[in-house]
Amino acid sequence: MERFPLKSSVSKMATTYQSVYKKGTNEGNGHGGPSGDDDMVNIKPGPHRAADTPTTPTSHGTFQLYEHGTRYSDASATSYIAQYFSSSAGEADDIPGIGQYDDFHTIDWQRDIARDRMRHRYIVKKRQDSIWDLIKGAHDAWSGWVCVLLVGVCTGVVAGVIDIGASWMTDLKFGICPQAFWFNREQCCWSNDEITFDRENCSEWLTWPQVFGESREGPGAYIISYLFYIVWALIFAALSASLVRMFAPYACGSGIPEIKTILSGFIIRGYLGKWTLIIKSVGLILSVSSGLSLGKEGPMVHIASCLGNILSYLFPKYGRNEAKKREILSAAAAAGVSVAFGAPIGGVLFSLEEVSYYFPLKTLWRSFFCALIAAFILRSINPFGNEHLVLFYVEYNKPWKFFELIPFVGLGIIGGCIATIFIKANIYWCRYRKYSKLGQYPVTEVLVVTLVTAIIAYPNPYTRMNTSQLIYLLFNQCGISNTDPLCDYNRNFTDVNTIEKAAAGDGVYRAMWLLTLALVLKLVMTVFTFGIKVPCGLFIPSLALGAIPGRIVGIGVEQLANKYPKSWLFSGECSTGDDCITPGLYAMVGAAAVLGGVTRMTVSLVVIMFELTGGVRYIVPLMAAAMASKWVGDALGKQGIYDAHIALNGYPFLDSKDEFQHTSLAADVMQPKRNETLSVITQDSMTVDDVETLLKETEHNGYPVVVSKESQYLVGFVLRRDLNLAIANARRTMEGITGQSVVVLAGAAGAAGAALGHGPPPLPLARILDLAPITVTDQTPMETVVDMFRKLGLRQTLVTHNGRLLGVITKKDVLRHVKQMDNEDPNSVLFN
Amino acid sequence: MERFPLKSSVSKMATTYQSVYKKGTNEGNGHGGPSGDDDMVNIKPGPHRAADTPTTPTSHGTFQLYEHGTRYSDASATSYIAQYFSSSAGEADDIPGIGQYDDFHTIDWQRDIARDRMRHRYIVKKRQDSIWDLIKGAHDAWSGWVCVLLVGVCTGVVAGVIDIGASWMTDLKFGICPQAFWFNREQCCWSNDEITFDRENCSEWLTWPQVFGESREGPGAYIISYLFYIVWALIFAALSASLVRMFAPYACGSGIPEIKTILSGFIIRGYLGKWTLIIKSVGLILSVSSGLSLGKEGPMVHIASCLGNILSYLFPKYGRNEAKKREILSAAAAAGVSVAFGAPIGGVLFSLEEVSYYFPLKTLWRSFFCALIAAFILRSINPFGNEHLVLFYVEYNKPWKFFELIPFVGLGIIGGCIATIFIKANIYWCRYRKYSKLGQYPVTEVLVVTLVTAIIAYPNPYTRMNTSQLIYLLFNQCGISNTDPLCDYNRNFTDVNTIEKAAAGDGVYRAMWLLTLALVLKLVMTVFTFGIKVPCGLFIPSLALGAIPGRIVGIGVEQLANKYPKSWLFSGECSTGDDCITPGLYAMVGAAAVLGGVTRMTVSLVVIMFELTGGVRYIVPLMAAAMASKWVGDALGKQGIYDAHIALNGYPFLDSKDEFQHTSLAADVMQPKRNETLSVITQDSMTVDDVETLLKETEHNGYPVVVSKESQYLVGFVLRRDLNLAIANARRTMEGITGQSVVVLAGAAGAAGAALGHGPPPLPLARILDLAPITVTDQTPMETVVDMFRKLGLRQTLVTHNGRLLGVITKKDVLRHVKQMDNEDPNSVLFN
Repeated sequence: MERFPLKSSVSKMATTYQSVYKKGTNEGNGHGGPSGDDDMVNIKPGPHRAADTPTTPTSHGTFQLYEHGTRYSDASATSYIAQYFSSSAGEADDIPGIGQYDDFHTIDWQRDIARDRMRHRYIVKKRQDSIWDLIKGAHDAWSGWVCVLLVGVCTGVVAGVIDIGASWMTDLKFGICPQAFWFNREQCCWSNDEITFDRENCSEWLTWPQVFGESREGPGAYIISYLFYIVWALIFAALSASLVRMFAPYACGSGIPEIKTILSGFIIRGYLGKWTLIIKSVGLILSVSSGLSLGKEGPMVHIASCLGNILSYLFPKYGRNEAKKREILSAAAAAGVSVAFGAPIGGVLFSLEEVSYYFPLKTLWRSFFCALIAAFILRSINPFGNEHLVLFYVEYNKPWKFFELIPFVGLGIIGGCIATIFIKANIYWCRYRKYSKLGQYPVTEVLVVTLVTAIIAYPNPYTRMNTSQLIYLLFNQCGISNTDPLCDYNRNFTDVNTIEKAAAGDGVYRAMWLLTLALVLKLVMTVFTFGIKVPCGLFIPSLALGAIPGRIVGIGVEQLANKYPKSWLFSGECSTGDDCITPGLYAMVGAAAVLGGVTRMTVSLVVIMFELTGGVRYIVPLMAAAMASKWVGDALGKQGIYDAHIALNGYPFLDSKDEFQHTSLAADVMQPKRNETLSVITQDSMTVDDVETLLKETEHNGYPVVVSKESQYLVGFVLRRDLNLAIANARRTMEGITGQSVVVLAGAAGAAGAALGHGPPPLPLARILDLAPITVTDQTPMETVVDMFRKLGLRQTLVTHNGRLLGVITKKDVLRHVKQMDNEDPNSVLFN
Repeated sequence: MERFPLKSSVSKMATTYQSVYKKGTNEGNGHGGPSGDDDMVNIKPGPHRAADTPTTPTSHGTFQLYEHGTRYSDASATSYIAQYFSSSAGEADDIPGIGQYDDFHTIDWQRDIARDRMRHRYIVKKRQDSIWDLIKGAHDAWSGWVCVLLVGVCTGVVAGVIDIGASWMTDLKFGICPQAFWFNREQCCWSNDEITFDRENCSEWLTWPQVFGESREGPGAYIISYLFYIVWALIFAALSASLVRMFAPYACGSGIPEIKTILSGFIIRGYLGKWTLIIKSVGLILSVSSGLSLGKEGPMVHIASCLGNILSYLFPKYGRNEAKKREILSAAAAAGVSVAFGAPIGGVLFSLEEVSYYFPLKTLWRSFFCALIAAFILRSINPFGNEHLVLFYVEYNKPWKFFELIPFVGLGIIGGCIATIFIKANIYWCRYRKYSKLGQYPVTEVLVVTLVTAIIAYPNPYTRMNTSQLIYLLFNQCGISNTDPLCDYNRNFTDVNTIEKAAAGDGVYRAMWLLTLALVLKLVMTVFTFGIKVPCGLFIPSLALGAIPGRIVGIGVEQLANKYPKSWLFSGECSTGDDCITPGLYAMVGAAAVLGGVTRMTVSLVVIMFELTGGVRYIVPLMAAAMASKWVGDALGKQGIYDAHIALNGYPFLDSKDEFQHTSLAADVMQPKRNETLSVITQDSMTVDDVETLLKETEHNGYPVVVSKESQYLVGFVLRRDLNLAIANARRTMEGITGQSVVVLAGAAGAAGAALGHGPPPLPLARILDLAPITVTDQTPMETVVDMFRKLGLRQTLVTHNGRLLGVITKKDVLRHVKQMDNEDPNSVLFN
């Protein structure tokens, strides 16, 4: 047994300590027997002993527990761990892949967390040995904070670069700054001393017609502008799509469905790698600038998660442990939303509510720190050069009136409907793309969508402008300085602070028509855009899709109040001459409603909207609309867009929000089904050949270990990967191992046989046996099983009846069963 | 079996459906055999069948699963459930206490949640039957929202009443409004048209010396005021303490440690009852008015939780299910903090981070709704009659400078030290009170503490004033209108917006001395106050304990910057003539630090402070101080004040924040220990007498059921309470049951024996057997076991080895083991 290399026991170590102690005892004989150490733990010689001396039933309803063995001091155990760490930390000859996972596989949270605590205990013990170990211990204790600090700083910087780049390139579609071509319009006009309300008319900035000697206005100028707009859009989109296609296919889309899946405990190699990071950042700048109907908020979460993943490799505690790494990724996701919206609290709640799966309170605090640092750095970079702390800062003169809750809830319902239409259409189109020839021409598709978007968008000023600008315009209150047609009211401004009630002018009605057109265009284009192979988010398009009907409804209510000030509805609070309705607030509420309907966010939505707009007084309207929208959305179609995309892609995501509603039992779900056979390994009666045959004939990721074929009493669980590696290793390093060697996973029968000299020596594999598999009985209701999978992060559970093994339930089995019960196609679950 | 009453099966129903289906089959013979129903589930005839035909091992590593029985349609199962519900919903002859818990016992989350889903499924099925059932279904679906709405409204109203009452009685200590004695000073002065900065000098309000014909000032007036102050304080305190002692002993203290314990799944009857609610509300008004060093924020959480508990009884879904009720209680706790500070988001995060245990996302959304409604109602009541939305609204002219992070972190360290001193001293004193004669004289203790507090507090203006006023004063920036000595700077105000740098005057130095005295007094008095038998919270005292050193440090830094403007530290950002340091901000940061150190809140602390003060720009300083304070606190003493009080009272609270650091295995923790015997029941070979003897001889709450004494293979788990009730019931209702009747929990041996006519008829108790107990193997590391207890909310788990039962681990065993490992007294865990 001593010849079996230590390193392959790493996965074993994670789940049981028995081998650790045994090894420690073997090596630390000087420590044998009771020592005076206070910190002693009570260690038994392991299951060998238990199997040697079966439990002896005694009298009435009681029985003797098998005897506890000698007590070993913890120090001897530590020496083993020390050996493992010193041998694995420095050298690279670790058996590759042990303790790791294959691509597209589910991780085992319990095992990874146990591994981390083992490592942690070792470091804590070691700390007393020397100053250097103390420093290493301190480094380890701080590494989580240092890591999220780095993630926060990098996220802030990357977000700043993306903001600056996107803003410059967006302006490039309209013109150029001849003095310094790397200036965007705003920066170009800074050098100008003219104080002007109309930013378009700064003389330093040349529009493309002006560059070509035309005037700013006129049909020729219009055509040149139109052409340049389309050409630039196509160039940006083509570049973005080609980069994604050539260098990082994972960089497309918003990334949030995949990050949700990864955080729920799934491995997608390269999804959070450096190439994805670089291409996603560059591609995001390009695709945002191309004028497509997409936002940069979702991809920002992906970019932040890439940073989290890359930086976690600097800290082995996180980089080498998939479960721990997800703590950093949760924090990174919070930082991503934080920089996207300047909303650190909203970002943390988004990470908690929408993205993360395993979110202990320690992670909450770190995520908050990370989000705050990222927001702070971005604010220090100040890419937009403005003073406001929030993206769409609004200030309304009037509080909302109680009766306005009716239109707000109405907006919630409208928002829920728009969101459902969008989700259904988008999923339909994405499914069509996936299963048709269209999917083979991603760059062409991007170019077509860009061309159509650019051609339709340019003529309408509300679609031509940046979507963020449109949202800001719609959220705003009409003040003196606002020259947009949307604010063309027949009123005389006497005082800045009092806006008198007034009928809408022609401009407002024209704007409403244009906005309605813009709504239809945006809805259609976003359906076709979300899912094409460029980085694209849908927070901003969703906000726009809600802000437009919101503003329209707001203007409608405002005009009603203006026309019928004496009606019962308005008489109470709107009877004075002041304007009592703020259409901008309706736009804000509508935006929240659609975003809520699309993503099914709740608390985080309200907090993000509140941080986004600074509208502390408007939480109640926002909440009313968000609730209405979510209920309408849930009634019309169960899933939000992210969950729908997860289902479309067949990721193994066990939603922690859904409740399992059915009455099935574990016995109904487990494999094997009736008349099928269950592959098991016996603890000490199968030969190496038997095991290898089993490995060849079946494809399971792991095998239950039972006492014997006859009794089927469960002993433990062994992973396919570990079995393969251990057998290959033993053949290489141990003498006399042949196909006839008996594989001894537990028990002493095989070992005893070998001691008597019959046949080849046995192959002891106790180290790779997980003696603590999670089991349930066959009568356990599936809701409990689902709960255990969710809360404990299981890969599989074993099903027993009266101690006998009946079958196995894997995460895939659970997901398939849930799908089947919901009358969906269980074969859409692709991964295990 | 038909004679066995249906009702006693309610607890059985919760964990396994086997009996449900069996019963359904018996009753619904017409449905027997496969039906065409799409919604069929695959049901086996239960373990009887399995035991009849033991699993037959076949060839190579595989075995035959026991045959699935006939398929029964779900409809027949439903008919049984229908019968249960119709029989139990209306009538009151339910066997009392089944499905309920004893006082001071731990609840079983899995069982309660399974029960709720069962009920939910029944209602969903029933919904198609009639319009009335549809309405009932809709009512059920909405009841959660309606319940939290009611809780929010009631919490807002109660908080408003408490605020108004406390404000009136606090002012009563100083004087009276002769026109209308029920007006407080502020309301009294509203009728006055004088516009005055000094609220003390409104002529409508008479101070006590004025009532007795003295002048406002002068030594005579001082003595009269002093006496009235002390007498009123004693009267209020005596009333409060007597009410608590006579009517509701549970109304004392802050209640948060107990609510944490209750939410973690523990029963304390009457702790959230109506008497506690009434007495806590009245007592809180009295004790706050008495001038003791306590706040009303913690008790507000208790009051809101009482409301949540009481209102949940209107909705059987919540009132009759302890696990579901805790969802309402979590929301109520959020509402409590929300009204205490006007901080709905902070309240939700407080509930999530500090109070709640089981907090699914659905609850998050409802809690937010509840907190928002409560805050909205309180704001509509507007008890303070001011416009500000936040309690301590501050507005500073200057942003914070980067170098200020050094003093902020310093304040965090100071705050952590103050908090640790407070916690240690308070726990020492509470332990002394608990184990000495002092505990027998609670009212006397309250009176002594009040007398001492009043005598010492009056002479110092900063302790005489309301603690909230003190905090507001300390947070504030010195403006033109501020006449407090704290703002006695040698400067000329030229412009309201520019405050020039200036040396502090004598008033400031005098104020600093008084503040230092106030700090010492408050610290000492709060140590003695927190824990006396009146309702008392410590948010406000903690904030004050931090605001005082914060302001002092702030003034110090300010004066340094004033004296050495050219030094390297200040030269960059403080070299202009403007005042660059805001001492009020330091007070805010210091307050956050101490509160963070005392309660160990993190994110919720920062969010509450931000909502409390409206200081959106100061999140980074707040966070820096909160982190420093928490780290210092964690280094000096592990627990926050609430956890320390939980430990002091021996509540069974398994903290989800602590990580289990030790290497023990399940086998080390389980009962019975070596040489002891485990009490088990066999599935079909013990007589009623045997079982009753076992029940008499042991005190366990439940017993594992095994196949036979010889084999010890685990079948299930049965609760003591259910056994008692079922046997008593059977003796009453079944014929021929004697002490010699064989108790048949599972298997068919006993039944077969009875069929042959030997001896008395068997007693079938399959209904009360939980066939799905959670099990772990003996080699499972304790950290996994602890994780399972936390995340699944277990009461106990069974320990097996190779399918054989070895022992039981209860929550108490886990807690004792954790204590033992941390070198604490395991016997301090009192409850199970």
